[in-house]
Amino acid sequence: MSITMYEIAIPSFTKHLDALDAILDKAAAYAEAKKIDPEALLWARLYPDMYPLKKQVQSACDFAKLSVGRLAGLTPPVHDDSEKTFADLKKRIAETLAVLAEAKPEPMEAAATREISIKAGPRELTFTGKEYLLHFALPNFYFHAATAYDILRHNGLEIGKRDFMKRL
Amino acid sequence: MSITMYEIAIPSFTKHLDALDAILDKAAAYAEAKKIDPEALLWARLYPDMYPLKKQVQSACDFAKLSVGRLAGLTPPVHDDSEKTFADLKKRIAETLAVLAEAKPEPMEAAATREISIKAGPRELTFTGKEYLLHFALPNFYFHAATAYDILRHNGLEIGKRDFMKRL
Repeated sequence: MSITMYEIAIPSFTKHLDALDAILDKAAAYAEAKKIDPEALLWARLYPDMYPLKKQVQSACDFAKLSVGRLAGLTPPVHDDSEKTFADLKKRIAETLAVLAEAKPEPMEAAATREISIKAGPRELTFTGKEYLLHFALPNFYFHAATAYDILRHNGLEIGKRDFMKRL
Repeated sequence: MSITMYEIAIPSFTKHLDALDAILDKAAAYAEAKKIDPEALLWARLYPDMYPLKKQVQSACDFAKLSVGRLAGLTPPVHDDSEKTFADLKKRIAETLAVLAEAKPEPMEAAATREISIKAGPRELTFTGKEYLLHFALPNFYFHAATAYDILRHNGLEIGKRDFMKRL
């Protein structure tokens, strides 16, 4: 018994994007209840040179969308990061989930040993598909999902790790 | 070609604990250079009811140590969370890395389909070993590693995602 690329990627990304979507619902409701301008949360950062909430969500979506696109041989929709509202970010998540739903196990499995090169800033990183998923896509995805959570917690949203883990 | 439990768990935990260890070195050096009491960083939190840095590091270690212990059939050392300094936390990481180094692929693979029950607060969660690794241990581990990073960034430590990803 071994574990497939599909089993590693798709349920993990799907579950935590669903969780992020529900957290954004709570953030939007919190802004409304407390009469906070939603922009104050969407642009909240933990430090001036860190990404704001908005970009953390966009980045989490992109690590899921682009990695599954490459591994499953799909051409996912292009997003220009123009989201302005919680509803826009939820739409971005929904479009990312649609890419995940389209992915099939076989091409992903074939990609496990394929060489994958990506640009990371000025540099080019080369991995096998398996390394790319385990050591690039997944940790980066969780990093941005956790940081989105941390930004909202820091801004007083009452969520707990159960929200991050999507446990009922 | 499929991916083993060992390949998913051991290199991921090892790499990001090494990264966290290097981040703690930078935090200790930052405290010294800026004449910041190290306690101010070790007890820093993003919100009053969130875990401080110290506990984020301890938790990341525990998700790695306890999951690999269970999956690989090891009895890892018990830690009582008494760490008081950056050096103590680095020792905790080193002892966690020693558990990872001891794990063998075969028992971990056999654990993929075994039922695993754990206590999470007042509730009992039951998984297969595979689900436990992918949907409990890994996301919780990355959550605490990212939050440790976020706390230090929020407190002015000059690190970047490259430090989190341990890219040279």
